[in-house]
Amino acid sequence: MAGNTFGSLFKLTTFGESHGKAIGGIIDGCPSGLRIDIEKVQNDLDRRKPGQSKIVTQRKEPDQVEILSGVFNGITTGTPLAFIIFNKDQKPKDYSHIKDNYRPSHADFVYDKKYGHRDYRGGGRSSARETASRVVAGSIAKQFLSEIKINAYVQSVGKIKLNKPYQELDFEKIESNIVRCPDMKIAKEMESYIKNIRKQGDTVGGIIRCVIQKVPIGLGEPVFEKLHAQLGKAMLSINAVKGFQYGSGFSGTKLMGSEHNDIYNSDGTTKSNLSGGIQGGISNGMDIYCDVAFKPVATIMKIQETINKDGDKVKMQGKGRHDPCVLPRAVPIVEAMAALTIADFVLLNRTINL
Amino acid sequence: MAGNTFGSLFKLTTFGESHGKAIGGIIDGCPSGLRIDIEKVQNDLDRRKPGQSKIVTQRKEPDQVEILSGVFNGITTGTPLAFIIFNKDQKPKDYSHIKDNYRPSHADFVYDKKYGHRDYRGGGRSSARETASRVVAGSIAKQFLSEIKINAYVQSVGKIKLNKPYQELDFEKIESNIVRCPDMKIAKEMESYIKNIRKQGDTVGGIIRCVIQKVPIGLGEPVFEKLHAQLGKAMLSINAVKGFQYGSGFSGTKLMGSEHNDIYNSDGTTKSNLSGGIQGGISNGMDIYCDVAFKPVATIMKIQETINKDGDKVKMQGKGRHDPCVLPRAVPIVEAMAALTIADFVLLNRTINL
Amino acid sequence: MAGNTFGSLFKLTTFGESHGKAIGGIIDGCPSGLRIDIEKVQNDLDRRKPGQSKIVTQRKEPDQVEILSGVFNGITTGTPLAFIIFNKDQKPKDYSHIKDNYRPSHADFVYDKKYGHRDYRGGGRSSARETASRVVAGSIAKQFLSEIKINAYVQSVGKIKLNKPYQELDFEKIESNIVRCPDMKIAKEMESYIKNIRKQGDTVGGIIRCVIQKVPIGLGEPVFEKLHAQLGKAMLSINAVKGFQYGSGFSGTKLMGSEHNDIYNSDGTTKSNLSGGIQGGISNGMDIYCDVAFKPVATIMKIQETINKDGDKVKMQGKGRHDPCVLPRAVPIVEAMAALTIADFVLLNRTINL
Amino acid sequence: MAGNTFGSLFKLTTFGESHGKAIGGIIDGCPSGLRIDIEKVQNDLDRRKPGQSKIVTQRKEPDQVEILSGVFNGITTGTPLAFIIFNKDQKPKDYSHIKDNYRPSHADFVYDKKYGHRDYRGGGRSSARETASRVVAGSIAKQFLSEIKINAYVQSVGKIKLNKPYQELDFEKIESNIVRCPDMKIAKEMESYIKNIRKQGDTVGGIIRCVIQKVPIGLGEPVFEKLHAQLGKAMLSINAVKGFQYGSGFSGTKLMGSEHNDIYNSDGTTKSNLSGGIQGGISNGMDIYCDVAFKPVATIMKIQETINKDGDKVKMQGKGRHDPCVLPRAVPIVEAMAALTIADFVLLNRTINL
Repeated sequence: MAGNTFGSLFKLTTFGESHGKAIGGIIDGCPSGLRIDIEKVQNDLDRRKPGQSKIVTQRKEPDQVEILSGVFNGITTGTPLAFIIFNKDQKPKDYSHIKDNYRPSHADFVYDKKYGHRDYRGGGRSSARETASRVVAGSIAKQFLSEIKINAYVQSVGKIKLNKPYQELDFEKIESNIVRCPDMKIAKEMESYIKNIRKQGDTVGGIIRCVIQKVPIGLGEPVFEKLHAQLGKAMLSINAVKGFQYGSGFSGTKLMGSEHNDIYNSDGTTKSNLSGGIQGGISNGMDIYCDVAFKPVATIMKIQETINKDGDKVKMQGKGRHDPCVLPRAVPIVEAMAALTIADFVLLNRTINL
Repeated sequence: MAGNTFGSLFKLTTFGESHGKAIGGIIDGCPSGLRIDIEKVQNDLDRRKPGQSKIVTQRKEPDQVEILSGVFNGITTGTPLAFIIFNKDQKPKDYSHIKDNYRPSHADFVYDKKYGHRDYRGGGRSSARETASRVVAGSIAKQFLSEIKINAYVQSVGKIKLNKPYQELDFEKIESNIVRCPDMKIAKEMESYIKNIRKQGDTVGGIIRCVIQKVPIGLGEPVFEKLHAQLGKAMLSINAVKGFQYGSGFSGTKLMGSEHNDIYNSDGTTKSNLSGGIQGGISNGMDIYCDVAFKPVATIMKIQETINKDGDKVKMQGKGRHDPCVLPRAVPIVEAMAALTIADFVLLNRTINL
Repeated sequence: MAGNTFGSLFKLTTFGESHGKAIGGIIDGCPSGLRIDIEKVQNDLDRRKPGQSKIVTQRKEPDQVEILSGVFNGITTGTPLAFIIFNKDQKPKDYSHIKDNYRPSHADFVYDKKYGHRDYRGGGRSSARETASRVVAGSIAKQFLSEIKINAYVQSVGKIKLNKPYQELDFEKIESNIVRCPDMKIAKEMESYIKNIRKQGDTVGGIIRCVIQKVPIGLGEPVFEKLHAQLGKAMLSINAVKGFQYGSGFSGTKLMGSEHNDIYNSDGTTKSNLSGGIQGGISNGMDIYCDVAFKPVATIMKIQETINKDGDKVKMQGKGRHDPCVLPRAVPIVEAMAALTIADFVLLNRTINL
Repeated sequence: MAGNTFGSLFKLTTFGESHGKAIGGIIDGCPSGLRIDIEKVQNDLDRRKPGQSKIVTQRKEPDQVEILSGVFNGITTGTPLAFIIFNKDQKPKDYSHIKDNYRPSHADFVYDKKYGHRDYRGGGRSSARETASRVVAGSIAKQFLSEIKINAYVQSVGKIKLNKPYQELDFEKIESNIVRCPDMKIAKEMESYIKNIRKQGDTVGGIIRCVIQKVPIGLGEPVFEKLHAQLGKAMLSINAVKGFQYGSGFSGTKLMGSEHNDIYNSDGTTKSNLSGGIQGGISNGMDIYCDVAFKPVATIMKIQETINKDGDKVKMQGKGRHDPCVLPRAVPIVEAMAALTIADFVLLNRTINL
């Protein structure tokens, strides 16, 4: 209820503040018998890690994950799988300037109003540092879903957009550049653009596309728990996300039914896939693809006017170590949320027939 | 889990098939002491009702709601509020042609694969008829939230778009035309366009904007249950929805942080509102606004090729009574889902402080 | 949350007041493909029905159940199975005397304090009439669990106790007498005793034993959702229940470990079964047996002193039609709660392995 | 679902195996603004700790709790409160003899059958070591419920029973002896008895009574979430518990209504309290009292026959360090589960009125 749990059967609960002792989580409901490849988990964490390249925050966090329970002899036991990442590079002093001031478009103000006080160090719980726990759990979910292919990549940064359909891309190239865009030319443009934005002390947003392939038919529940509804919630719960669309999305609103309908082949596949692999909330076996819109990071290095606790106007300037663009680091987070969503529906789908 | 329940504290569970005996639902958790204005509920139902104008389906359903429990002397008792709408205009024969055939971009195929069989009459549970139950519950939620203003309207139909910001519109005009667009000129254009589309035996999509005003500060939970994440899920669970954005949405991805940040006034309000009334997943007291993208209705009157249960190719043509454009009837549904979402967070917010 | 839902995967939500229009419920999560034998459901309802014999309340309710959704051509579709029982024999006047008075050991007082007002007609929601909905759902759960045998019977009425172990009883005889005690001699004694108690205008309690056989190994979750913990909750949620024990129960507290331990046979069965078929919260394949303690009905025909809303002392005497002993009618309720509990764990158990 | 979470609003999720790296948990939903007295938490842990006296297991675990998140400047922030207890005294070799053998009346057999394999070290997840996490969370819940008084004590050990009603006892004396029985004479008898049992290499069960005082009127939900139903589940989820009763309990089944009914005083209190402070599932402001039945510990030092994984008969003898009687250490666990139950209902009760 208080919102730190995701999923119903494959269930993740996370904890931790940006500059507290540790962050981590508990996966309750990971099926027993799964051999955990901890290196794969660490690898996904490294893709999200600060300091991984010149276009991301330079906070130095090794983000070393440790499993505390639920795995015996390398194999899950069906009991809660708890994991922890100790925070190493805490510089609370970097944040003393926000103790009493409310950063624009951050959660400082609403936390204070909602809870009466807040752990202001690095944004505390509202920091995207929390998403490291999601990446750990998502990576384990991906191992559970070994038959299903989940790939996310940066589709746009600001106004720079990769215009090719995902079918024409080589997903193997996503990790070949620091932006995580599978088109090397566009990736270079994006990289330059981000570096330029950083120099200006500014930030920029963008869109991540996620493609989920080899999904079994039948995932998702008809009414409130439609597959895309829960997937959308999963994505919208990521820090800085402002929008979600799947299949034809917003542009589909301009089409006529005769243009939009996906005509069946004899085997139940469809000739087109404007449905985005989901019909009536249930996967139909075609590729699921969706877009996740990220706003520009709110912390900028430019001077901004804002208010303090008492409502006095104050000047403020980003300190500390921040991302000019979260997109490259958000790719594994999007994948993780997709994996957690799908894993939950896979388990649920085992319960619906006699 | 099986997905027919929405909400955690103000909780709606719905039942019913398009051409079964009845549809309805149970609201569990509606606070006691609320005087129910049943006429307001019926009025919202009438806004969703088939046959209400020339641009919607001509199925004749009075959609008369009856409350079965949970209200005593006109006031809620805190016990489950059950309600029922009996189906009157069932013409199951209209649907015999889809018994063995799979309509393109409908849920027929996936229901059969998921459940082994399906109630094919009018789409059964996958029919948008289910949303009448949401409208009933949402209307009661609106009565609970009497201080909060929830208004939805049609922002675009196909390529025809109302380009004014919502602040320049008069919400009182939404109900003054059959399209439910508060700009009379654009509404007329939309109406003509829909009529034209209907004549062609085709359908068209569009976008509904929803604006929620006078929201208290502090609604929404920081991590997985961010206010906009649950709101997005609520909207994405409506039949035919393909996308959701709030605040700056997809267009915000093109901005820089210095352009996107909302600067505070001394009283905690913000000069701009690209945040869309939500920061860090928590309402900040500014207007919440969001867009909901609807695809064109899948049932068209044109002949389409499709397959039957055995994978044989068959020709198919829409029969029965269908909407050329669901947008006008979807307005109260969007409002209902917004109200249910907010009601739940209002109750939850009572539990978070000492 | 508000407590009108039981179960997580096989999920029942009930509604309705004793003298409102109707009672009923929604089962969400009943697997698709189950052929529903409605006569069996009605038969279970008839076992709970008022007026069925001379030792129960003479309220005349046909308790005719009607399924509203979720079943097509006699087979469940996987969508919500809603059912309704219209109240026929409402005599609200019988209850005007309790409008302002608080019946001793009833819920009148706490409802008023908790909710601010209450539907006082026949106890409204607090009436055991609600359990008819449980019997419907439990009967369907039993059909889902056709391999598992669930039998409950009256073990004691007041001080009259059936002292034989359940293994020596013929469950076929449970329905052969109006008390539902499978020993004809003891049943007769109980019947006379209840008739005598009724003549005195008094009421009496007793114990129901429930035996669940042919349970697969592995049901139940290790920690908070132990099989017996949820079973206990299920039973304790029935009106008038004051206690629950399983296996050796309270008397097991007096034994030593060397006496209490169940020694394994080679096939994993145990020589004794003080564990009651559950070890560590998980079924071990042996019979599950438990006892459910019912207090005497609070409504008596004798004059009692009590208070009204204003705290004034008033005299009160039971009117209307009440049970001198609920045990005979509670047998199918106990079975229903057992079935609902087991059904939920059966579905959950499908999700725990790779 | 997988059963490692307790509560809905004040929600505890635990993790950890007896001889893994650590045990611990996350409390999600602890209201913000609560000053945490960590010494009180440690004190409750010490009451449950092994090695605390001569009549309990001599495993040496300091059971030092560390809070990882959710508390800032000593005060809860409303974000997840995670805590950890590292396991220190792991002697996995003590348990190699149970790797392939199934201990009688333990969970070894069912874990293997349910999950395919198990962490056999000290019983892994099935060990009562998990309850240390409950004590931590319960202790924090008690601090949240500072107005409510929760006291548990040992009422019987084997056949030795404290026959005084709780009203005649001085709860201050509970901690004055190692048995945790507030009557010094009976406590001595129990102590001698336990020592004697231990000498025999045997174990014994008993009953803990729990008394909850100064409970506000109105806690608990009418139907499936009756206060005593959830309280019963809470208690039945503790390792080794076989039964639960509240108020008049099993003995109340022998009374007549005229004897059992609690007659109101003018102020809404009752002259007697056979209801046990709960009517219709809702607290009425009177003392809540209940009994929790514990079976004798299954691990005994005597030689027992059992089977191994292959179904071969083997001889087995308890090794390691075990309790001859869990009752003294279970007292804080019972209190913890009571506190967690009440805390949840206190929060829920804030949501039910307008």
